[in-house]
Amino acid sequence: MTVRRIRTSQGETGSEYTAALGPPENGRRTIAERLDELYAPVLDGLERVRHTLEALPQEQLPFMGGLLDHVLDTTGKRVRPALTLLAARFHPNDGRTAEIMASAVELLHIATLIHDDTVDSSDFRRGKATVSNKWGRNAAVLLGDHVFANSATFVCDTGNIRVIRRFSETIMELSSGELNEMSGVYDYRQTREQYLHRIYCKTASLFTMAAESGAVLSGAPEDRVQALKEYGYNLGMAYQIADDILDFEGSSEETGKPEGSDLAQGVLTLPTIIAMERHPEDGPIQALCESPNDSDALKRAVDLVQGPAVMEEAFAVAEQFSRKALNSLDALDRNDARDSLAGLVPCLVRRSS
Amino acid sequence: MTVRRIRTSQGETGSEYTAALGPPENGRRTIAERLDELYAPVLDGLERVRHTLEALPQEQLPFMGGLLDHVLDTTGKRVRPALTLLAARFHPNDGRTAEIMASAVELLHIATLIHDDTVDSSDFRRGKATVSNKWGRNAAVLLGDHVFANSATFVCDTGNIRVIRRFSETIMELSSGELNEMSGVYDYRQTREQYLHRIYCKTASLFTMAAESGAVLSGAPEDRVQALKEYGYNLGMAYQIADDILDFEGSSEETGKPEGSDLAQGVLTLPTIIAMERHPEDGPIQALCESPNDSDALKRAVDLVQGPAVMEEAFAVAEQFSRKALNSLDALDRNDARDSLAGLVPCLVRRSS
Repeated sequence: MTVRRIRTSQGETGSEYTAALGPPENGRRTIAERLDELYAPVLDGLERVRHTLEALPQEQLPFMGGLLDHVLDTTGKRVRPALTLLAARFHPNDGRTAEIMASAVELLHIATLIHDDTVDSSDFRRGKATVSNKWGRNAAVLLGDHVFANSATFVCDTGNIRVIRRFSETIMELSSGELNEMSGVYDYRQTREQYLHRIYCKTASLFTMAAESGAVLSGAPEDRVQALKEYGYNLGMAYQIADDILDFEGSSEETGKPEGSDLAQGVLTLPTIIAMERHPEDGPIQALCESPNDSDALKRAVDLVQGPAVMEEAFAVAEQFSRKALNSLDALDRNDARDSLAGLVPCLVRRSS
Repeated sequence: MTVRRIRTSQGETGSEYTAALGPPENGRRTIAERLDELYAPVLDGLERVRHTLEALPQEQLPFMGGLLDHVLDTTGKRVRPALTLLAARFHPNDGRTAEIMASAVELLHIATLIHDDTVDSSDFRRGKATVSNKWGRNAAVLLGDHVFANSATFVCDTGNIRVIRRFSETIMELSSGELNEMSGVYDYRQTREQYLHRIYCKTASLFTMAAESGAVLSGAPEDRVQALKEYGYNLGMAYQIADDILDFEGSSEETGKPEGSDLAQGVLTLPTIIAMERHPEDGPIQALCESPNDSDALKRAVDLVQGPAVMEEAFAVAEQFSRKALNSLDALDRNDARDSLAGLVPCLVRRSS
């Protein structure tokens, strides 16, 4: 990774890692391959987390065990538990408590996916039938509750009240974020600030807590904890914005959804809000919000949002958060974990083309 | 209350309170009036819990605040928070931590009701539209998550890891109990032991934890904690069995449901299991389980369960748990809280006629 200080177009001092935000490197490595490299400093811990989760169904009665087995057999990116483990590497510690916490963080993420799939009536996730598809929505609601609670018992095992409290607050933020999204559907009066608050709640809060808790449990001094918390926050914000952009420009093969699927469901994300800021007069987005079933209005609205100027501006906002994430790493001693945290930013915050 | 030791038909030593299990006293006081008397030693604390919960919606954005306001405006029996407050009265303490815990316990109960109503597709509770009826099932799922998490933040404020852990385990048990009930629908091979485990999970676990946590947070010695935990367990078991009996013998005015509504939904409770034990040959219950939509089979099955011998035996099981609850109070110093705990047993575990 190139190590130099640069000055960004926003006039902020770039971190030594900021150059990594440039055009993608050559070669066709998949994201999974790149993540495996970045996880190297904590790969053993991540494997122990995987084994811990895989053992959970055996402790349950058969029906519950079967449900758990289905949802825990995941092949996800494991970004959140990796954040916890990497954030615990800036102060000497045996790593055990951070691994317990990383298990809690991954379980919490799985619980939110179970309820999100139920709420969205999604039939598949990563090519696999969702719980609500296979066993019905009622089982999914109760299984989600069970996994939430199971994650909380892991956090209790850390014995750290600060972390337990932050964990509970995060679950509140996650559900608030989803509820805000639901209540704001087809509401064209919503602002960029409301959007940013919403994605903090629904996505960045968990990234923030994942990094913060790893740092706290390592016993790191408070300024390091704050730096890692800030990193998690900014990475989470950038990641969600990039995801919202991908919804408009990714091929359906990549996202598994048709282009503009958020807008088709009335969810107004940053690109849509920017398009409305640029066209404040009654435009196709407002028309769509007033006639949600009008497929012509949807097409016109998606076309407007997909304009290059709108997408550039949206990605510039994601890059601002990326840059802040990288800057916050400057407060930490350089080690392999810091390099990995830096590498995660361009890996997770990217455009499809 | 008559104070004497009696020997019960099961050959157990009765506590000095056991006589209270006799026929109901004269007079037509409502349960609410009787509960108000029993809550007297902790009424101030219960009122502070009510105010704490009523203030929560104001901390939220309008949409979430409206949802919370709807579910927190309850006129429930407040049995669980009262248990916590009463259980905290056997060791000198300022009562503040127990009140925080009582708020958590009531919030947890409310969260389970929100998800239960969603799972059962109930439109009304205590004459009021449920969240899923008024705002849709999706809002109910997410609101339930939020209230679960909010309850957990209260428990964190107690600062007691043992209690926090028991709280998380209880949420796991509650959801396991509901999932077990769901997976056992129309399964006539289920046993009395399976039933008892299920009602422990879905009901008695919360009663157990409510009493145990009050005792722990008061700083009481471990033998008192265990006595109060046992009391909570046995009261919870007796309460759920009585509720399952009431489903067969209560008028629909009293229960809000037609007689035998559990069985009509395929949920096999203690009276049904006893009827199957007494008639092990292929009977109407087995026939119903094989043809769930057969209304004649349902009527024959309900008639069989409602036979006096079956109902007597079921109530005898509830009374056994009641007696054990009262016996466990013998380990505690006598005070007004102990008298109230004793009085709660016959008040909550009763027959409709």
